[in-house]
Amino acid sequence: MFYIIGLGLGNAKDVTVKGLEIIKRSKSVYLESYTSILPVGKEELEELYGRSIIVADREIVEGSTDEILENARNDDIAILIVGDPFTATTHIDLALRAKEKNIEVEIVHNASIMNAVGCCGLQLYSFGETISIPSWTEKWQPDSYYERIIYNYNRGLHTLCLLDIRVKEPTIESLVLKKKVYMPPKFMSVAEAASQLLKIIEQKNKIKKGSAVISAENYVVGLARVGSDSQKITVCTLTEMEKTDLGPPLHTLIIPGLPLHPLEIEYVKQFATDITMFQERMEGRRIPRNK
Amino acid sequence: MFYIIGLGLGNAKDVTVKGLEIIKRSKSVYLESYTSILPVGKEELEELYGRSIIVADREIVEGSTDEILENARNDDIAILIVGDPFTATTHIDLALRAKEKNIEVEIVHNASIMNAVGCCGLQLYSFGETISIPSWTEKWQPDSYYERIIYNYNRGLHTLCLLDIRVKEPTIESLVLKKKVYMPPKFMSVAEAASQLLKIIEQKNKIKKGSAVISAENYVVGLARVGSDSQKITVCTLTEMEKTDLGPPLHTLIIPGLPLHPLEIEYVKQFATDITMFQERMEGRRIPRNK
Repeated sequence: MFYIIGLGLGNAKDVTVKGLEIIKRSKSVYLESYTSILPVGKEELEELYGRSIIVADREIVEGSTDEILENARNDDIAILIVGDPFTATTHIDLALRAKEKNIEVEIVHNASIMNAVGCCGLQLYSFGETISIPSWTEKWQPDSYYERIIYNYNRGLHTLCLLDIRVKEPTIESLVLKKKVYMPPKFMSVAEAASQLLKIIEQKNKIKKGSAVISAENYVVGLARVGSDSQKITVCTLTEMEKTDLGPPLHTLIIPGLPLHPLEIEYVKQFATDITMFQERMEGRRIPRNK
Repeated sequence: MFYIIGLGLGNAKDVTVKGLEIIKRSKSVYLESYTSILPVGKEELEELYGRSIIVADREIVEGSTDEILENARNDDIAILIVGDPFTATTHIDLALRAKEKNIEVEIVHNASIMNAVGCCGLQLYSFGETISIPSWTEKWQPDSYYERIIYNYNRGLHTLCLLDIRVKEPTIESLVLKKKVYMPPKFMSVAEAASQLLKIIEQKNKIKKGSAVISAENYVVGLARVGSDSQKITVCTLTEMEKTDLGPPLHTLIIPGLPLHPLEIEYVKQFATDITMFQERMEGRRIPRNK
């Protein structure tokens, strides 16, 4: 049997009792390490599991899929995924390839950022489409995701922005060489995401005033290491978020749709840098400067 | 400390290792039983936990909140929630009331239907706003949720439809009496949800042909008991879904946005009642009859 086991988000003990039982009895256990990261190291996992695990980057998972899956024909093989197994397309693909080989697959679900963001107090029912914010380079600065934020915003829906993760990506220069050279891992921070959004807003407003819809004064929610003991949530304007340091990855940004539900205001305000200002703005008792 | 612990969806062992440790050491453990249900009974949970739990319906949770929370001032008290803690508004409210009393709150996340629906192969990034389908009565037949389905659909986004749950609701007749009489618990099935949608479609098309956007021939995904050993997923047209019995609750319905991604087609087709027809329709090689 081939098991795809979600590890949740925070620490080693976020694995489910069912997941742990399977890990303990599996012949080989892989830890997928390129679509997300846990705030804890491999060693901590191995200690709880009482067994060794193989850290599997993109090359191992995608390059040795056949071998990994063939082993699952006669033995129990497990691959561990940070969050919930099917959040990333790559794991749906993995399950599909197992099924094509007539190898049985079992999924063990867990929390993922897609539901755990509820911890900030914004209602999950009021989220629209989730988007990904890619890291800009000097020459590649896509902004098509912005329109999807606005689409949600105009409907009063919140947007969950997943921030770029780059792990073990070869440098462009090394792609033509025989031996690949890898860039250091890079995880986008809420400050970088806010900075990109502010640039897009500025550009749009330069073309036509107000066409950006969202402004630098909009409140946004920054989250770091959701579900872990060092979880941080900050609520401030986009301008302030650009200057905010939430510490180590992973970070997530939410652009709330308006108006907020009274219960959302009540809960979210505990994370605001300026609680009075946040509450007055959200309750419509204070108008932002540039609107 | 007041702990709000997600139990996940499927069975007793879906609790996390962290959650189980807290449950074992807490002074009192409540199981919230009115916003969702587990496919396993209280006894099975108690056996795994090695301790007794108190099943808490709406009256207990909402009526005795102060008492429950006050006990958490000096002792560890846990409330167990099916799925993830903050999926329902009522639990955000509970955390808020604890914070108002200066009682520390800790959340233990888990899988919820909001992310576990990924098990059908539709990408979570391609879901729009989640909606709830309420049970109709003879006199109360709201259909405003339909417009939100269409809004997602027109953007090519999938809609997750949470189906009505009614647990321990007093009969209308008994509301005027001193002693409340409760209706039997009721969980909407995918067949009932499909039936409602078909009625709305018929009504809309009667007013103006084609204004329903979605037709009886649209493919939908029915899911039952997601995450449990008896999980069932069926993919068929809305007309067929009206006649489909997926067994005991909970059920969930998805209205997929189109076109599907090739990987989605590849994965979802395994659940189709007519795989060839589904594939041809999704790949645009066969046109539905009434379009």
